Amino acid sequence: MRQFTRLRSLLFAPAVRPDFVAKLADRGADAVVIDCEDATPANAKAEGRANAAALAGDVAANGTQVTVRVNAEPTKWFADDVRDALTGALTAVVVPKIETMAGLDRVASALDEAGHGQLGVIAGIETALGVADARVLLAHTRVVAGYFGAEDFIADMAGVRTPGNAEVHYARSAVALAGRLAGVPVLDQIVADFRDDVRFRHEAAEARSMGYVGKLCIHPGQVPLANDAFVPSADEVDRARRLLEAYDTASAGGVAAIDFEGQMVDEPLATQARRIIALADRP
Amino acid sequence: MRQFTRLRSLLFAPAVRPDFVAKLADRGADAVVIDCEDATPANAKAEGRANAAALAGDVAANGTQVTVRVNAEPTKWFADDVRDALTGALTAVVVPKIETMAGLDRVASALDEAGHGQLGVIAGIETALGVADARVLLAHTRVVAGYFGAEDFIADMAGVRTPGNAEVHYARSAVALAGRLAGVPVLDQIVADFRDDVRFRHEAAEARSMGYVGKLCIHPGQVPLANDAFVPSADEVDRARRLLEAYDTASAGGVAAIDFEGQMVDEPLATQARRIIALADRP
Amino acid sequence: MRQFTRLRSLLFAPAVRPDFVAKLADRGADAVVIDCEDATPANAKAEGRANAAALAGDVAANGTQVTVRVNAEPTKWFADDVRDALTGALTAVVVPKIETMAGLDRVASALDEAGHGQLGVIAGIETALGVADARVLLAHTRVVAGYFGAEDFIADMAGVRTPGNAEVHYARSAVALAGRLAGVPVLDQIVADFRDDVRFRHEAAEARSMGYVGKLCIHPGQVPLANDAFVPSADEVDRARRLLEAYDTASAGGVAAIDFEGQMVDEPLATQARRIIALADRP
Repeated sequence: MRQFTRLRSLLFAPAVRPDFVAKLADRGADAVVIDCEDATPANAKAEGRANAAALAGDVAANGTQVTVRVNAEPTKWFADDVRDALTGALTAVVVPKIETMAGLDRVASALDEAGHGQLGVIAGIETALGVADARVLLAHTRVVAGYFGAEDFIADMAGVRTPGNAEVHYARSAVALAGRLAGVPVLDQIVADFRDDVRFRHEAAEARSMGYVGKLCIHPGQVPLANDAFVPSADEVDRARRLLEAYDTASAGGVAAIDFEGQMVDEPLATQARRIIALADRP
Repeated sequence: MRQFTRLRSLLFAPAVRPDFVAKLADRGADAVVIDCEDATPANAKAEGRANAAALAGDVAANGTQVTVRVNAEPTKWFADDVRDALTGALTAVVVPKIETMAGLDRVASALDEAGHGQLGVIAGIETALGVADARVLLAHTRVVAGYFGAEDFIADMAGVRTPGNAEVHYARSAVALAGRLAGVPVLDQIVADFRDDVRFRHEAAEARSMGYVGKLCIHPGQVPLANDAFVPSADEVDRARRLLEAYDTASAGGVAAIDFEGQMVDEPLATQARRIIALADRP
Repeated sequence: MRQFTRLRSLLFAPAVRPDFVAKLADRGADAVVIDCEDATPANAKAEGRANAAALAGDVAANGTQVTVRVNAEPTKWFADDVRDALTGALTAVVVPKIETMAGLDRVASALDEAGHGQLGVIAGIETALGVADARVLLAHTRVVAGYFGAEDFIADMAGVRTPGNAEVHYARSAVALAGRLAGVPVLDQIVADFRDDVRFRHEAAEARSMGYVGKLCIHPGQVPLANDAFVPSADEVDRARRLLEAYDTASAGGVAAIDFEGQMVDEPLATQARRIIALADRP
């Protein structure tokens, strides 16, 4: 199955807006989604599929990783989405509201039967059941990535979304852990208030601290924020280099726990510093 | 089994205080509890049972949903509580410190044998084991609702209760999720500082955001706060109506992701808006 | 197996620093660790083992509970650590990065074969898998205590450690719950910024509220902070005594839910008060 390179930003555009879709390749996102689900109304599903199939190749032409979000597997639209909306230009298919292993098996079969055996699934974990069973769901062999959908999750919980995100902290943490256990990258929730850059940056930093590799973006303006937030800052890289130099010198001399700028540093912090440098050195 | 209508507020009164019990129907609570457990001392359990049996019918006369809290199933009082404290006037029985499916089976058998086959259980999830296994416990066929008991949970954890509630955030979230998975309404922890309305309102808003439908009340003054907090505010309803009007208009025109007052709105947010309006329109 | 008395503070010293190890007994810690893992570099593992074996008896001479941290079971160092670094002077062995029951079984067998059948394991829960399976891991019969290692956990999650600890709140809560379910005491994460007493005190209070019995200490200066933080304060004890007196008086008179200084007090709060007094009365 095809795998993603980077996934700091995953930008959505409605399949029913060919003008927005056409510009997806120019937004600088690591990957993009042509959305046949929530952003495509029930009365325009066929139009959305046709647009997705017609436009994905152009968007992918400059190397952008392109995906299509189909409707959830239990809906009446899913079968037609798989048949009509997907092409060889895609890196993966986004499947929302993943809840059961049987559902994932049916998704895999449908993709295989439609000749898309190379397409893995970005699994949307965004219901109570999906969150509760995320550990096994994200470990399904067809899943190549996952995302946590806070808006749908809280709608399913009959709760209320708040800017502080306390109501999704447990679920968001559980999905990050499940992603790590499954060995697949996971993406953090959207920020619907698309002009609130402060909130986006804050959430992105939170998400990175929890182990998320990137963030869903519902507006092009969020893409540079995500791309910036999910790599180490220059200060972090500088500090990591200094830390490793001090640690390696001490280790060579037989000492593996050192006082580095007021912090006790030993192997776990050295491991984190090595990862920061590896991320920063990435082309 | 009998089911609850609303459960925004569940007001407790000690079974040994017939004066308090007699007034339960006048407090405006969605449901009330005559408490034979924590609020009834060990040396007055028989008196508590007699009061509960004698007074429940009067309290229920104006339509108030009445329950009795018995002592936990493993205690020496449980059998007598079931035999002597319950009457046909009750909507359900509150059973504290639910920890195992076998325990719930024994509760169900005891209720059936005492002729209370129509009574479901409000399951108290308030121990380490109860929280850890809440998903299966709340899905027991006899359970019609649940509550999270923070004071008992932290006593069992040998922890310390704090006003910030960070020490119970994980457990409180897990119980909300378990309730949703089981399809039963769950009620949030008490506020012991019964004069602290600010804290009560704050916790109620938190709880609603997490998916709780109401709050345990240990003082009549908390009832109106709970009744108010667990329904959408007028502002929320206004916004939901405007949002849905804009969304429905756009959808009819083939667009399902719109900029509504600076927020990207698509199906998940529309779903939340529909639920807000449904709650507000409820008689 | 040997059991710990108190575990408010568990102080680490590198096995390759015999000067630090020699002073471990004088630091006032409830228990100490001679660390052959992270604080001992790869090129000095043999030296670390020899020091641990040679010095543990001296440290234990004044009654200090002494442990050795070996390298994780899957590493090439583990077998030699068990053979060469452990002595009869130890109360337990600290095994980091516990992830599977099979791994714990191998640890137990290795200890038995080396003649250390009396040594239980302090299990380090500090990876994604360890956290996810902490409930069963800490319940392994060989485990006598556990700790949550935030630095290693976040390194494994590819996340970022922050002073606010939001990124570890879920895992930290899960480990506290797992410890309670298993009936073993659990210790909270280190504070690497060893001069930041405010943070240490804050984290210790948080940890105690969650049910942790103590804290890992990576600097002698942290020991008195931990010893102080994990026992009730004089104010807490005073309040608990007053509360219990009022509660017991009321209960004897047939009332078990009272207004105590503005708080509704019944059995759960009385239970907490009794525990506070028991902790304070401990010699």
